[in-house]
Amino acid sequence: MIKLAVLDVDGTITSRDRRISTASVEALRKAQDSGLITSLVSGNVLPVMYGLKVFVGINGPVFGENGGIMLQGDETKAFFSKEAPGRFVTEMSVTTSVRPILTNRWRETSMSFVMDQADVEKVREAAGKKDIEVVDSGYSWHALNPGQNKGFAVDVLAGIYGLDFSEILVCGDSDNDLSMFEKPVVRATVDNGTESLKSKSDYVSDLGFGDGVVDILKHFSLI
Amino acid sequence: MIKLAVLDVDGTITSRDRRISTASVEALRKAQDSGLITSLVSGNVLPVMYGLKVFVGINGPVFGENGGIMLQGDETKAFFSKEAPGRFVTEMSVTTSVRPILTNRWRETSMSFVMDQADVEKVREAAGKKDIEVVDSGYSWHALNPGQNKGFAVDVLAGIYGLDFSEILVCGDSDNDLSMFEKPVVRATVDNGTESLKSKSDYVSDLGFGDGVVDILKHFSLI
Repeated sequence: MIKLAVLDVDGTITSRDRRISTASVEALRKAQDSGLITSLVSGNVLPVMYGLKVFVGINGPVFGENGGIMLQGDETKAFFSKEAPGRFVTEMSVTTSVRPILTNRWRETSMSFVMDQADVEKVREAAGKKDIEVVDSGYSWHALNPGQNKGFAVDVLAGIYGLDFSEILVCGDSDNDLSMFEKPVVRATVDNGTESLKSKSDYVSDLGFGDGVVDILKHFSLI
Repeated sequence: MIKLAVLDVDGTITSRDRRISTASVEALRKAQDSGLITSLVSGNVLPVMYGLKVFVGINGPVFGENGGIMLQGDETKAFFSKEAPGRFVTEMSVTTSVRPILTNRWRETSMSFVMDQADVEKVREAAGKKDIEVVDSGYSWHALNPGQNKGFAVDVLAGIYGLDFSEILVCGDSDNDLSMFEKPVVRATVDNGTESLKSKSDYVSDLGFGDGVVDILKHFSLI
């Protein structure tokens, strides 16, 4: 029986232009009213996740910076440092098209950037040498510490609630959600999800974005 | 003709428990599609306002900290300093029940707190002596600089868009929205608005919270 749903934000409960799906918001509230615990895990910064927790009404902890930092109740917890990712992005911005983004001012455990497609391989290679993980959320690139990924957040949540992985539903759309799909959890993808996610999913919705999330919650009898 | 709508967040486009009204989100998107510019002005911090701008899809600038700081496109602009408000809250926390709140870590131009009802007069009096303005948003107290209020944000918006006040609709629910209602703008209040706001309003909705906002947008033929 699924007791906790862990969802990605951008492209999962939002449309392609990042506007939140009001249908998915209503569905998550309804699922919570029936006893489901929900959590959001995103590459975005903690205060944005705090806002989502308040305004959507998420009842579980929320994670920013790809699992690097958590808000549980009124307590924040940073699991990593931004030192190495920050140094990496600064260095790369000198020799490549890497450009830091607005939300970095609120980052505590990672650093984000955009770059020209032509530099992707060069930056990946440099990251490998520096023991930095770089992932593309589809909205920006994130420079992260080793082990800092959304799967880490799922481990933390399983610990907090004392749940077996089989009691946890994960839902995402892009390859930076893959680390959640590598756990023996229940996995679901929206129609706009990547092929890698779809191939690992227990359920793939025919519907995209927020409508897909509503469909997934229905499929698992959570609403 | 109304060209810009400036809205408060908590208690206006949210329910009492701060969950956002999905009906008001959809109505604001619809009004924008018909050409309306929208802006949100709140006591909350800028990254939370950034999140609201992205996830609701607000097309105009958003203001945090009661007008103290603005996000326009990708540019942020702080109009005040947090130095004096920060010192005031720190001092008060020694001698009264004043307690800083979670979001202060992201504040740049003000400081927020909660306190026991018994200390309200004492804190107001001390603020008067220090030239600090204290206002109650209904969700927390804010210590602000002189002139830092939501009416200031309306002035900034009028300047940005070159609008006459008569082309601006303001909408709020609590007394920290009063400074917007003192401008010669078009004023509207939701049913849960304070009596002070209602007495100054051009239109008072019979409906509360987000449903009131939807009604107000309809009343002024904006949707």
